[in-house]
Amino acid sequence: MERIIMAHGSGGRLSHQLIKDVFQKHLGNEFLDQMNDATYIKGREKLAMTTDSFVVSPLFFRGGDIGKLAVCGTVNDLAVSGAKPLYLSLGVILEEGFPLSELEKIVLSIKETALQAGVQVVCGDTKVVERGSADKVFINTTGIGVVEDKRVGPSYIKPGDNILINGTIGDHGISILADREGLEFETPITSDCAPLNHLIEEFYHPGVRCMRDPTRGGIGTTLNELAQQAQVSILLEEEKLPLHPSVAGACGMLGLDPIYLANEGKVLVVVSPENTEEVLSLMKSHPLGKNAAIIGKVMAEEPGRVLLETPLGGKRIVGMLEGEHLPRIC
Amino acid sequence: MERIIMAHGSGGRLSHQLIKDVFQKHLGNEFLDQMNDATYIKGREKLAMTTDSFVVSPLFFRGGDIGKLAVCGTVNDLAVSGAKPLYLSLGVILEEGFPLSELEKIVLSIKETALQAGVQVVCGDTKVVERGSADKVFINTTGIGVVEDKRVGPSYIKPGDNILINGTIGDHGISILADREGLEFETPITSDCAPLNHLIEEFYHPGVRCMRDPTRGGIGTTLNELAQQAQVSILLEEEKLPLHPSVAGACGMLGLDPIYLANEGKVLVVVSPENTEEVLSLMKSHPLGKNAAIIGKVMAEEPGRVLLETPLGGKRIVGMLEGEHLPRIC
Repeated sequence: MERIIMAHGSGGRLSHQLIKDVFQKHLGNEFLDQMNDATYIKGREKLAMTTDSFVVSPLFFRGGDIGKLAVCGTVNDLAVSGAKPLYLSLGVILEEGFPLSELEKIVLSIKETALQAGVQVVCGDTKVVERGSADKVFINTTGIGVVEDKRVGPSYIKPGDNILINGTIGDHGISILADREGLEFETPITSDCAPLNHLIEEFYHPGVRCMRDPTRGGIGTTLNELAQQAQVSILLEEEKLPLHPSVAGACGMLGLDPIYLANEGKVLVVVSPENTEEVLSLMKSHPLGKNAAIIGKVMAEEPGRVLLETPLGGKRIVGMLEGEHLPRIC
Repeated sequence: MERIIMAHGSGGRLSHQLIKDVFQKHLGNEFLDQMNDATYIKGREKLAMTTDSFVVSPLFFRGGDIGKLAVCGTVNDLAVSGAKPLYLSLGVILEEGFPLSELEKIVLSIKETALQAGVQVVCGDTKVVERGSADKVFINTTGIGVVEDKRVGPSYIKPGDNILINGTIGDHGISILADREGLEFETPITSDCAPLNHLIEEFYHPGVRCMRDPTRGGIGTTLNELAQQAQVSILLEEEKLPLHPSVAGACGMLGLDPIYLANEGKVLVVVSPENTEEVLSLMKSHPLGKNAAIIGKVMAEEPGRVLLETPLGGKRIVGMLEGEHLPRIC
């Protein structure tokens, strides 16, 4: 592979390879090598830092827009790392000719979402490129949070732990696809895009071992990362995966696998067996967790693998996402 | 104005208006309203944060490339704010089809420049967009630094202070232009792109009132910002402005004004009169300051204005850059 292909941006296997072969190879250090959603920075006060660029198309979609997404994505990466998100930077690249009214709508959405999440945009930058040199607007947000009680991460995962999720999977992926292709559903579907920090505060508990937000690449890719980093295997139960009926229908019709679809308001939580019911019930008590479910468990055998058990009892190996089926999902 | 035009990215008057009318209007808070190169964040440890996106074209130019620029730009914004740059994030947007070999060259340049500046890349993100949806590579870097001794800023500027610069102006602007247009000079010119934090440590002194790096929009625009924020006027002496002979020649030939050309390795320093000679000599002792000069002074009259005194004794008003004469300079 000598040129960038779309799959390098999929969040799946080729994205991981690009990071390993180009970025980590040359820039690797104790911080980057953490390979977490946010990086813990040493200091008198323990900080976490994370960055994300957003290139979603269309800019405005059912349930959100690029501005809302840019705040949620970075807030969530901090929150799942056990940090309290506090400050965001905002870097905007604009295409010449972009309507100011749409820019203002995006900025208002950033404002509203930041307010909702309780974070502040503290610095910004704007660049403009010629018509045709960018597609409308790209946004980078970088976030800083304070690590209040850092006891989460792949190294805390143990065989016997349960895997929870706060609701239905694939809603963001299918909403974007529906907007792009003009698909209509009987039961309308909207993106799950939401800041998760308040939900996480709600269910946070010493029994929580690790959290991740399964965005690009879906729960399939994220759970593979966890299985590899923690050197455990993960067994998912297919019939327990919460699915919106329209997502299930669209996946059947289009041949998509919901475990690889992007989520923007979901958190995978690994919890010790004795605290699972308590965490699940705390999750369900929050509006963003009302469809929470236990979807699988951690096992010692075959470390690094993710397996899916079908309703008939068969098992198949779930790899990282290969190729790219939905580019520019975030 | 209802659509984005190139001048919104010039760093000049329209850039300021866009920030005021859209970003600050909706997102304004005590941090963003500081309107400094980096934002000071309150906390147990005082931090500064800054963000910059880089869209320079061409990607590789005489004296640097987009990777070097992305590190220097953010390091310099922290350093001129009196902060010690420590950590960078790296957000990369790639166009499908971009050669991996070029990406690797850029990453190596980031590595080398970060090493030189003494900063670490602690987190990153990569997105890929379809061919034609971006022009090759855009990079965002966001930086965090520790404010060790914050006594610099426009509010410290007083009438009678001197304005110093660490060398020739407009080198970056003319190098990029030369690369784009295939111009050749008798005395070759390269971009001044360099991390300034070590130079600044060298000359830092209680007599230093304020520092700014005159990038997009040049010293003309940056000094206007300072004059307005400090409510003073600034008188520049045209014949004292350090100019590389090829920059002077190119400006004469092309009708460009060097005071509006971008710099990527220059710092404007406002110094109290009694400490000016000492700071100047400290500056000159560092390789990045050997062409340092006193170029003007701060006055009380006509607050908000920048004036340029010509060798014949005439004075003209220097406004912010209008329009955009060199898009995608950084």
